[in-house]
Amino acid sequence: MKIYDWPTGPYPARVRIALAEKNLQSRVQFVSVDLWKGEHKKPDFLARNYSGTLPELELDDGTFIAECTAITEYLDALDGAPTLTGRSPREKGLIHMMSKRAELELLDAISVYFHHATPGLGPDVEIYQNAEWGFHQRDKALRGMHYFDGILKRRPFVALDGRHHGHRRLDLCRAREAAGASGVRGSSGLVRKDAGASQR
Amino acid sequence: MKIYDWPTGPYPARVRIALAEKNLQSRVQFVSVDLWKGEHKKPDFLARNYSGTLPELELDDGTFIAECTAITEYLDALDGAPTLTGRSPREKGLIHMMSKRAELELLDAISVYFHHATPGLGPDVEIYQNAEWGFHQRDKALRGMHYFDGILKRRPFVALDGRHHGHRRLDLCRAREAAGASGVRGSSGLVRKDAGASQR
Repeated sequence: MKIYDWPTGPYPARVRIALAEKNLQSRVQFVSVDLWKGEHKKPDFLARNYSGTLPELELDDGTFIAECTAITEYLDALDGAPTLTGRSPREKGLIHMMSKRAELELLDAISVYFHHATPGLGPDVEIYQNAEWGFHQRDKALRGMHYFDGILKRRPFVALDGRHHGHRRLDLCRAREAAGASGVRGSSGLVRKDAGASQR
Repeated sequence: MKIYDWPTGPYPARVRIALAEKNLQSRVQFVSVDLWKGEHKKPDFLARNYSGTLPELELDDGTFIAECTAITEYLDALDGAPTLTGRSPREKGLIHMMSKRAELELLDAISVYFHHATPGLGPDVEIYQNAEWGFHQRDKALRGMHYFDGILKRRPFVALDGRHHGHRRLDLCRAREAAGASGVRGSSGLVRKDAGASQR
């Protein structure tokens, strides 16, 4: 299978983490799509991914699967441990909830800030910006960091107490890196926790 | 189990559709949370759902699971046909992708329009509005309707060609209703297709 991505993108990183956790890297060929040139907004890319987002997975039968969580779902349903998206109904529900919450309150909020309230990927790619909305989402992300800090003070993982779900914490690690790249100053607690997580 | 929701909310409707498809309604007690009074933004609600969103599922052991897709994931992992979130890795990946895309390009865009560029739930609840962003998202939703129209001209379901995935089309049906309630004028094709879907 092929994965279209860009090495420094925080969303592509989420799938690279899932691949590493599942030990599937050797089965994947990576194809670069240059975000800074806006290659993900060009007609040939949009024809196979309407939303114009990275990463995107191409199966050997030509099927395209976009969206981090969908690609992770696919990879997790293949054989091999660990299980990343949950085993029991309760685990599946909680992991999906916290994954969505990490997007809503942190990852996506930082992304909006980057694309709307900073130069983002440059004027050729950022053809519409709403700076006020960008700053509003930055503030949401900062509140989100404190929220996740609070959770990680009480338990080692964001979604569950158990093992095998480290990538959900690593998602936050990537969020911190994205935040750093975007100029969002996070709370020290999250950084400290994530520094540990990144050394797993 | 209990589900906290509000009868006219489009997101709660998605879970009610999943419950109906799985024939699980009799196992659920519904508890109303009045959106118009902003009960979902009050401290006691936020304490158990940081994002302050409906619907929310409460299991008999006291676990809370928020987010439509997470609740659907939980329900689908319980026994009982049909399977809504996919069986094979490829099905799971494609259904998750299209579910996410329906949110990104339609459901969430309409929600932003409603909350930011209309009076929404009223001044007591809508304490921050960014009308320009709201109108931008309305336009995105209108483009999204045409995109999904195009897909439904080629095949009967949004995510897959097969059966057992009707709720993904019904999601769009609810999007149309939400759009109508919000004053977004959709393309006639989507309305016609969804009129059929709602009669299944």
